[in-house]
Amino acid sequence: MPAIILVEPQMGENIGAAARAMLNFGLTDLRLVAPRDGWPNERAVAMASRADIVLENTRVYATTGDAIADLQHVYATTARPRDVIKKVATPRAAAAELRGHTAAGTATGILFGKESVGLSKEDVTLADTIISVPLNPDFSSINLAQAVLLVGYEWFQAGDETPPVRINNAERPANKAELAHLFARIEQELDARGYFDPILQRKQVILQNMRNMFQRLGLMESDVRAFQGIIKGLTMKVKENRDDGDKP
Amino acid sequence: MPAIILVEPQMGENIGAAARAMLNFGLTDLRLVAPRDGWPNERAVAMASRADIVLENTRVYATTGDAIADLQHVYATTARPRDVIKKVATPRAAAAELRGHTAAGTATGILFGKESVGLSKEDVTLADTIISVPLNPDFSSINLAQAVLLVGYEWFQAGDETPPVRINNAERPANKAELAHLFARIEQELDARGYFDPILQRKQVILQNMRNMFQRLGLMESDVRAFQGIIKGLTMKVKENRDDGDKP
Repeated sequence: MPAIILVEPQMGENIGAAARAMLNFGLTDLRLVAPRDGWPNERAVAMASRADIVLENTRVYATTGDAIADLQHVYATTARPRDVIKKVATPRAAAAELRGHTAAGTATGILFGKESVGLSKEDVTLADTIISVPLNPDFSSINLAQAVLLVGYEWFQAGDETPPVRINNAERPANKAELAHLFARIEQELDARGYFDPILQRKQVILQNMRNMFQRLGLMESDVRAFQGIIKGLTMKVKENRDDGDKP
Repeated sequence: MPAIILVEPQMGENIGAAARAMLNFGLTDLRLVAPRDGWPNERAVAMASRADIVLENTRVYATTGDAIADLQHVYATTARPRDVIKKVATPRAAAAELRGHTAAGTATGILFGKESVGLSKEDVTLADTIISVPLNPDFSSINLAQAVLLVGYEWFQAGDETPPVRINNAERPANKAELAHLFARIEQELDARGYFDPILQRKQVILQNMRNMFQRLGLMESDVRAFQGIIKGLTMKVKENRDDGDKP
């Protein structure tokens, strides 16, 4: 799991918000380099809320070099890659690399600069790879905790097995027999009412279109039952003398 | 471009932060359903900062149904997909779909619920697809603006052409001739100093290992020049009488 290293963070609130963003994505190794307002910091704790467990294990260092001494591959987040020749990765590509490093037992960390000016050129030089978040070039300022959130998000997604698209609940798609019964029922009820009588030459086309529509709908087994219920209801006799069609 | 629809947002600050997150990723169609504190909202403007352009074009609606009336495919973000049978997509999968819808001219929108309880079951029912962000199940609360940020991030990435990994600056990788010159120079300078004399039988293996190391480093053309400079420097005579080796 990569360490998150905040270099000279200025506001305790942002440290707390970063801790929350970390824990949202299962990251717990927070390191601070020379936090402006010292450590521990009450405002950080207040903002972290239930993520205070991350703050309790936070380690503080005097220099960035000290904070990364035990790490083997270090990333630097910066919106403005400086005039250094260094590999620049998107958060997504970096996350895939980080998963690979972690699987290989390589110790990793990600540097985030102070709120006002980001990472210094010296800190960027300490890193192996730059992470730069693709953003609207006309409005590219995001705050410290948001940067941690996006990088943490990609880290978590790179190891997450949620299917990209799924159907909620344990419902199963209708099978073809259930659909065939539904089609047959509809056809039978329409026939019984003489629906096709004035348009008999178009009956087959209409039924075919109807079948194609139902196929396209991707009905669940319970949807077919719901339609059967609707058909049952629609084919019942109208109660009392409300059979003038126009009234509700 | 999908509309971002905040349903009954409670705090102006969160509307402003959501507007910032939208503009970070090029989204500008913000719609509010019955904002608790009315509209316009000073706190939203203060928080939005330079993203106030998004707020200026914000439209306010009485109901969710009104807000989505012109849309053709609507997504609902929810951490807890309710007991409805509905397609559930990750933000990434949803972003790919949204790009497809936009390319096809289909009008889309994404619903976000109020801070305290999220979207109601009724609002979720109005949507075609649920978006659920994969999060640490033990710490899965994110705030409204963060949810907008993550969904907006995926929307932007799905249309962004930043290469996943690139080398910063317009530098070009060294070609094989430059590397061959470097290897030859090193070998020649080491030979001239008798470096290999006591280990002559291992010379070829050592040079081969060295070549493999330099190949692996992925040097840029300017890196090769830097190494040439270092070799030049290391092979110069030591100045004055500092040649006792131990002193700096």
